[in-house]
Amino acid sequence: MSIFWSEIAKQITPYVPGEQPRDKKYIKLNTNENPYPPSPEVIKAIRKAANEDLRLYPDPDCNELRCVIAEYFTLSKDQVFIGNGSDEILAFSFPAFFNPKKPILFPDITYSFYTVYAKLFHIDYHLIPLDHEFSIPVDQLTKKNFGIIFPNPNAPTGKYLPIEKIKHVLEKNKEVMVIIDEAYIDFGGKSAVSLLSQYPNLLIIQTLSKSRSLAGLRLGFALGHKDLIEGLNRVKNSFNSYTIDRLALACAKEAIKDTTYFNNIRNKIITTREQTANQLIDFGFKVIDSKANFLFITHPVHPAEKLFSQLKEWGILVRYFKTPRIDNYLRVTIGSDEQMDTFLTTVQKLLP
Amino acid sequence: MSIFWSEIAKQITPYVPGEQPRDKKYIKLNTNENPYPPSPEVIKAIRKAANEDLRLYPDPDCNELRCVIAEYFTLSKDQVFIGNGSDEILAFSFPAFFNPKKPILFPDITYSFYTVYAKLFHIDYHLIPLDHEFSIPVDQLTKKNFGIIFPNPNAPTGKYLPIEKIKHVLEKNKEVMVIIDEAYIDFGGKSAVSLLSQYPNLLIIQTLSKSRSLAGLRLGFALGHKDLIEGLNRVKNSFNSYTIDRLALACAKEAIKDTTYFNNIRNKIITTREQTANQLIDFGFKVIDSKANFLFITHPVHPAEKLFSQLKEWGILVRYFKTPRIDNYLRVTIGSDEQMDTFLTTVQKLLP
Repeated sequence: MSIFWSEIAKQITPYVPGEQPRDKKYIKLNTNENPYPPSPEVIKAIRKAANEDLRLYPDPDCNELRCVIAEYFTLSKDQVFIGNGSDEILAFSFPAFFNPKKPILFPDITYSFYTVYAKLFHIDYHLIPLDHEFSIPVDQLTKKNFGIIFPNPNAPTGKYLPIEKIKHVLEKNKEVMVIIDEAYIDFGGKSAVSLLSQYPNLLIIQTLSKSRSLAGLRLGFALGHKDLIEGLNRVKNSFNSYTIDRLALACAKEAIKDTTYFNNIRNKIITTREQTANQLIDFGFKVIDSKANFLFITHPVHPAEKLFSQLKEWGILVRYFKTPRIDNYLRVTIGSDEQMDTFLTTVQKLLP
Repeated sequence: MSIFWSEIAKQITPYVPGEQPRDKKYIKLNTNENPYPPSPEVIKAIRKAANEDLRLYPDPDCNELRCVIAEYFTLSKDQVFIGNGSDEILAFSFPAFFNPKKPILFPDITYSFYTVYAKLFHIDYHLIPLDHEFSIPVDQLTKKNFGIIFPNPNAPTGKYLPIEKIKHVLEKNKEVMVIIDEAYIDFGGKSAVSLLSQYPNLLIIQTLSKSRSLAGLRLGFALGHKDLIEGLNRVKNSFNSYTIDRLALACAKEAIKDTTYFNNIRNKIITTREQTANQLIDFGFKVIDSKANFLFITHPVHPAEKLFSQLKEWGILVRYFKTPRIDNYLRVTIGSDEQMDTFLTTVQKLLP
């Protein structure tokens, strides 16, 4: 604490990302990174863009990349916004679309950054408790509100809300913003992008960090009606004109274009997830049905916190959240088949 | 305008950066980019970092880069903060150190992003008018305030405030934050970094965009007491955990380390600036004394706005601000000797 901190700097509780340990080599199954490298086209594009043009500012409007993403989703360029990771877009969305003293809704168990943004931007919120199976109770999202945000699939549960239920939420909330955070949509879910033409209040946020193996690059995007994109641009351009560097702009295009590679690695991850889930069920775990690149698991006998520590000792990092309702669960990122074999063998050893 | 925009999204007036035209090739003297490429070590480092580790998140705390910058300035790592361009650090500083209804001070003619940040974060401010020679009247910075921010050298004037005057400001403002935006300090000014040990309320912000030829990379840093850096981290970690990508982290280190290259190009720019200034004075221009990589100029007969348009027709972009007190001035970035020769020849042709 410092006397020079603002009131809000004193009050906020910053988000804590998963560990990025530098002390030793772990099998990292704690931050939902992709076990496969990015497309070789991405690497080529970076090497090509590593040139003297770096002395010049990047295109602040990211026009070329927006065109590529628009084409991928059959949208127009003005329906696409680019951010420095999907977190930056979420951070812009709170002041762009939500107002102080006009409470928004999101699930009680969800991406823990939402409460952090709400505090930073003085946005009130009501938590909607997930049901006992960790599903979002969509009927609760029809009560009076001034905005809705949730991830689909949800984090850290991995649980997916089918498109019909998303449509139900949108039908009942035509007067307010509905933001769907689709960071994990490429691992078996169906994007709500097909609903964009019907709902001018729908904003979809995706990222290249997970399904396109580019967590190290920081690139996210939002899709929505052009007026919503303009709203995001107003906030972004009141914050930082040039958020995306030339290297990221150059190689993100290639990541989107290389659909063969993309489909190959995401299908591999889906297969590995299903195999891992079955094995864990055999070990006696309860495994929440996941459409993400992670599993959310609990064991009837072996406490999650203990298992987390034991796995760490064995050189395997998973994620444990010491928060109500989920403090006996572990979130396990889907790694390569080899990594998951090691994980499963180790878990089996540790079980009572 | 959209019914889904927040109140603040409707009210803000976003910053407008200098043109980044894509229609044709201009001599770009409008956004203070460096005419020389980044150090060859930077390019090498990017090519090396373009590898499969991009699938992993970067170090959110930027530890290695902070160590390199700390060593360069003889500070400790916890006195260094890294941002996605110095603009992002400025954007974090407003909510981190300033409070609504507690007005801060900055010059009337200065970096036009300050008023944008103030509006976005609901910070009140009083403008301190520069004197008729465009100097910051430091005695005006001793009146009651809740924070001070100004660039040194100032933008868009290029005028530099000597370190003794900075010290005077700090002596009179020990209870409030004083933020000095040193984006252009490497072109002949003396950084206030030597004052950090005496003033725990001093935050200095620098960038790799100008003197290190990396505008295309987005990398800025702040130097200050560790408690101030912690304040910045609290806001940053309530906004976006991973703001700097792996490529930027890898190559920024090399840009800081290659001091020979850095000193060579900044000295070249200083020499070109002085030669250009002398020539412009010969042409009848008034040239504000600059310690930046640009000149702020006005002509007694030829209107700046007209000259701006004429230069653009001739394929030369400079910056013109249609704002009170400076609407008859042009800001001209110092390019290579060849670019400045073309600029000067063209200007001479256009003068009455």
